Amino acid sequence: MPRPDRMKLGTFVYTYGFHPASWMHPGSDVGAANSFAHMLNVARLSEAAKFDFMFMADSPAAAVGDPEALARQPNKMNRFEPLTLISALAVATERLGLVATASTSYYEPYNLARIFASIDHLSGGRACWNVVTSDHDETGYNFNRRGLDPHAVRYARAREFVDVCFGLWDSFDDDALLLDRERGIYHDPRKLRALDHVGEHFQVRGPLNIASTPQGRPVIAQAGGSEAGIALAAETAEIVFGLASDIGRSRVFYATLKARMAAFGRDPDGLKVMPGVVVNVGRTRAEARAKVDFMLERLHPDVGRLMLSEFLEADLRGVPLDAPLPEDRLPAAPKGSRALFEELTAFVRSGRTVGELIRLYAEKHTGNGITGTAADVADVMEEWFETRAADGFILMLPTLPASLQDFTELVVPELRRRGLFRDEYEGMTLRENLGVPRPRGRAG
Amino acid sequence: MPRPDRMKLGTFVYTYGFHPASWMHPGSDVGAANSFAHMLNVARLSEAAKFDFMFMADSPAAAVGDPEALARQPNKMNRFEPLTLISALAVATERLGLVATASTSYYEPYNLARIFASIDHLSGGRACWNVVTSDHDETGYNFNRRGLDPHAVRYARAREFVDVCFGLWDSFDDDALLLDRERGIYHDPRKLRALDHVGEHFQVRGPLNIASTPQGRPVIAQAGGSEAGIALAAETAEIVFGLASDIGRSRVFYATLKARMAAFGRDPDGLKVMPGVVVNVGRTRAEARAKVDFMLERLHPDVGRLMLSEFLEADLRGVPLDAPLPEDRLPAAPKGSRALFEELTAFVRSGRTVGELIRLYAEKHTGNGITGTAADVADVMEEWFETRAADGFILMLPTLPASLQDFTELVVPELRRRGLFRDEYEGMTLRENLGVPRPRGRAG
Ligand SMILES: Cc1cc2nc3c(=O)[nH]c(=O)nc-3n(C[C@H](O)[C@H](O)[C@H](O)COP(=O)(O)O)c2cc1C
Ligand SMILES: Cc1cc2nc3c(=O)[nH]c(=O)nc-3n(C[C@H](O)[C@H](O)[C@H](O)COP(=O)(O)O)c2cc1C
Repeated sequence: MPRPDRMKLGTFVYTYGFHPASWMHPGSDVGAANSFAHMLNVARLSEAAKFDFMFMADSPAAAVGDPEALARQPNKMNRFEPLTLISALAVATERLGLVATASTSYYEPYNLARIFASIDHLSGGRACWNVVTSDHDETGYNFNRRGLDPHAVRYARAREFVDVCFGLWDSFDDDALLLDRERGIYHDPRKLRALDHVGEHFQVRGPLNIASTPQGRPVIAQAGGSEAGIALAAETAEIVFGLASDIGRSRVFYATLKARMAAFGRDPDGLKVMPGVVVNVGRTRAEARAKVDFMLERLHPDVGRLMLSEFLEADLRGVPLDAPLPEDRLPAAPKGSRALFEELTAFVRSGRTVGELIRLYAEKHTGNGITGTAADVADVMEEWFETRAADGFILMLPTLPASLQDFTELVVPELRRRGLFRDEYEGMTLRENLGVPRPRGRAG
Repeated sequence: MPRPDRMKLGTFVYTYGFHPASWMHPGSDVGAANSFAHMLNVARLSEAAKFDFMFMADSPAAAVGDPEALARQPNKMNRFEPLTLISALAVATERLGLVATASTSYYEPYNLARIFASIDHLSGGRACWNVVTSDHDETGYNFNRRGLDPHAVRYARAREFVDVCFGLWDSFDDDALLLDRERGIYHDPRKLRALDHVGEHFQVRGPLNIASTPQGRPVIAQAGGSEAGIALAAETAEIVFGLASDIGRSRVFYATLKARMAAFGRDPDGLKVMPGVVVNVGRTRAEARAKVDFMLERLHPDVGRLMLSEFLEADLRGVPLDAPLPEDRLPAAPKGSRALFEELTAFVRSGRTVGELIRLYAEKHTGNGITGTAADVADVMEEWFETRAADGFILMLPTLPASLQDFTELVVPELRRRGLFRDEYEGMTLRENLGVPRPRGRAG
């Protein structure tokens, strides 16, 4: 049963690209982290290809760890603040959705609701908020806390935070503005109301001091994989990102998530499941493979150790590269992907060296995903899409703009040839392009 | 003794203009409150005239009061969020300084420091933060509080907040980025440092996750008139706004403020005193006067009552227009300007009606300032400037863009003819144009 709609695509933007050595790629501006021109270039490539959106990942903290290794990882140390960046992109693009990550743990809902409403006006209805609770201790240290709040507290706050924002975005009815100069009446006072929210985490009276926006509310994206994260998504999100690498598990996740929406009276089509996928495409398989190797060669061992340290939650500074990792450095349970954890554990037990382990991890983490020709890449995407493991993909491109150029030149035409991706935007707003409903402004 | 430098000018932006009936002016887009085109037009007019900056006033709350009257005052109810707005303007203008108001009472310093650093990068060094502590109870109700925190608490928090931001903006030395792809080293780890701030209101570890900006730090503006506000300005600000209407008092204020800077080792030229001034200019005095009257006629009595209610801190809803105000409605002490308060009090005691009182207040508040020909306006500005009552002015124009167009067409050429205002921008950054020093990035 072929699916009636087309797949959704978005560009994941981690300044220089998703690969930890991406800043060393000769095809990018080495000063890109502070260059609007770089970001605009990525946006325009995405828009020219008719992508749904560009997605700004974020963390309100510089990474913490070995300073020498961090000096080799600008993506984690020097970046635009995403809300300001997408505000600027809003007036420099026309159709592309603009997604910014913002943490419910460290903002106030009145400020953030205003910010997103304002961006929705600036962009003519293309704003999207990626709701995160943050998951690194170093963020808490920048906000009067000793590390992260407990997971349950973060999600309870997040749930209430989103509710407050929904209420604030509905302050003005869609038809509240009368703009009647004859009678001197700007808005209908019966179509504006306070919120008077009193909750566990927030007391917010409202109303919001900005009129209802083109999308009614910005699109909500969500990326948390925990039970609490999934519950939040089922109730409130219109886009869900995942890092799932296994198609079988992804189909289950997809079906489960969509089924859970019914409890909230939501149509399953109102939420798009978009797993992240790392794509290395070439005109031949060898060319694609060479691109992976090119970047792997640029990965410094200190960066590899730092990445592994994070994944394994162990301090691997200075461990020799040419000897196996002592087994007692392995944690009992994985922090991230279980499948990858098991693969790495088996690899360690088989006596391979730390250098080999880093290479395996880096490849799995950043160079894996789909590597091959346009047909290879489209095959995988098509299978995921047609068998309802995904409604679309968020492209975690190893280098920017190089890998994005490769994708739009090689893969997008192939997807179009197969009828899997749009030729032209369907609408003006992100909601229209995604095909998710606009919340109805309350009637007066 | 003529002054060697030129005066500084900025456009004060309260969406439709400073006059409470400004939205009804036929020369503006009635939908301007949510229109980037309107804001861009104001920015471009200001930039074409070589103004130093455009200033976004702000309050994180809709006004509270008689709903029918507020429905006639969109400036207080529906506005862009200023940080997002100036981010967008940053990439749509080239030389104009961009000032956004943000309250230290309701933000977190890590978020706000990132935002302004990001805008400084986006704009190539034209960001300015107007530091306010907020002065309306309704703001507190949107942020978990029962009204405003006490004045002293707000200013103590503000002082610490600004300090934390300074520290965060200095996280990366100016020469920290090596961008060395050969050796794979992006930044010099010795030129990046945490802040480890532990204070009464904030604990912030840092470092900021964005490199040092074109201006080193955004320009700091300040508008508080209390002792605490002046102390903050003397120590940290580069622009001070005031509402002073009396040239004698303004000279004293000017001299006092500049003298106080010495205690902090600051050069008095590093701070520009810029009083707000309401300008109505015409080709003749009669034309200018007619502009004032045109707007006064559009002022609805409910709006007049609301404005007076705020100024007098009394609820004047429904008081008859054709009878005098009962004296017991007058407060013992003024909230705002003492001179205006005394004038109004005398007016009430002389038996004038509420209708006349509203008209007087509205004119003093919004139609007064300078009304006349370009020569009249320039005369006043010149006297203030030459006698050191002001380093420049923030133009509180009654209607936008109409009054701004009038000012740039009529007054700016007159100021230039007298050698009082620049013909061309002196530099690329706001600091260069203002002539205030760039903070030195720490040496490694
Ligand atoms: C594709 C993807 C992108 C993500 N991007 C961010 C991000 O930019 N910022 C962030 O703080 N967390 C990000 N996350 C993490 C999640 O939002 C979430 O905080 C984390 O998974 C922990 O939540 P959980 O316990 O519900 O899984 C991302 C996760 C995925 C799968
Ligand atoms: C010209 C001018 C503009 C101001 N703009 C704002 C503003 O946009 N937002 C705000 O909250 N306060 C604004 N204020 C108020 C002051 O910043 C300050 O909060 C108020 O004067 C109370 O502080 P104080 O007690 O030190 O006087 C402005 C004041 C002046 C004189």
